[in-house]
Amino acid sequence: MYDGIVQDLIDELGRLPGVGPKSAQRIAFYLIETDNDSASKLAAVIREAKEKVRFCEVCGNVSEGTKCGICSDPKRELSVICVVEESKDINAIERTREFRGLYHVLGGAISPISGIGPDQLRIKDLMKRLADPGIREVILATNPNLEGEATATYLTRLLGAMEISVTKLASGLPVGGDLEYADDMTLGRAFEGRRRVN
Amino acid sequence: MYDGIVQDLIDELGRLPGVGPKSAQRIAFYLIETDNDSASKLAAVIREAKEKVRFCEVCGNVSEGTKCGICSDPKRELSVICVVEESKDINAIERTREFRGLYHVLGGAISPISGIGPDQLRIKDLMKRLADPGIREVILATNPNLEGEATATYLTRLLGAMEISVTKLASGLPVGGDLEYADDMTLGRAFEGRRRVN
Repeated sequence: MYDGIVQDLIDELGRLPGVGPKSAQRIAFYLIETDNDSASKLAAVIREAKEKVRFCEVCGNVSEGTKCGICSDPKRELSVICVVEESKDINAIERTREFRGLYHVLGGAISPISGIGPDQLRIKDLMKRLADPGIREVILATNPNLEGEATATYLTRLLGAMEISVTKLASGLPVGGDLEYADDMTLGRAFEGRRRVN
Repeated sequence: MYDGIVQDLIDELGRLPGVGPKSAQRIAFYLIETDNDSASKLAAVIREAKEKVRFCEVCGNVSEGTKCGICSDPKRELSVICVVEESKDINAIERTREFRGLYHVLGGAISPISGIGPDQLRIKDLMKRLADPGIREVILATNPNLEGEATATYLTRLLGAMEISVTKLASGLPVGGDLEYADDMTLGRAFEGRRRVN
């Protein structure tokens, strides 16, 4: 469509998740037409991130050092590990300020269709961490979808024999949502997980 | 939120048009977690685009040379110039295969709110091109919105004194659209521009 390099840029941008052909074109022209600084800063920061960002050797979170900020924070509770699929889930949980324990990033969820089984996830590393007798609780915080649920079920069985309490995040109606618009599954889960309030 | 460089990457990505904070985070993690090649290729192509892509000295289209592919194509009709706001509009028009003339990129539209007046657009360059007596027609193909219409009106007045026919793209119902869902302005324009078919 376009002259060589412009099309190359559109193609590369189009490979990014959530960026369709129209957005790729829009971003490409923005980068070309904007002042030089912003585009070269983006190029530099991509390179720098690829060079410097590693994964925490304890929990698998993104980190610039060998241990991430959370694993090296002396104020965190060492007795609770929250298991998540991706590093970005940690950020979402941290924002709630509800949790002060440690994390473990699986690096995905069990998905036979995508060829991801338990061996492709960081489950062995999790088992090694759980050998520490100081750990009281494992919170399963995988996504509430097919793959996430399968992973949670797998982990529940695997951890069943151990003397650690395994908990799972509550499923139910989202806060601020409308009962009328809740899907059947969510509403069903909300009933299943109903709590006595008096 | 994140360790230094990860947050820097998210911030830079979030500056791109149409990329919100969530998408920026998703793209950042994709770039970090993906194999090295794809991220460094993107960084390289951004740099290369900024270094190599210039604007055609005739029409203002993006180009790797001093003249763009269209302006240097000997098969194009030299007597018609289609005036567009942005380079990407050229691509949209080229896809229709309806037009074989030349283009002129204004570099935006008149928008008093954004402080863009006629002097910020490539209107002087257009006037210079129109001094060529070989040019018969100028097609105004600015966007059918407030700014685009204002620009078309301005250009219509400016070119009124010249012996060149000035035309404007038809406004009306989009093909495949539903009359019921057309907005009032569009439906109004469709009536205004109705054509006899018998």
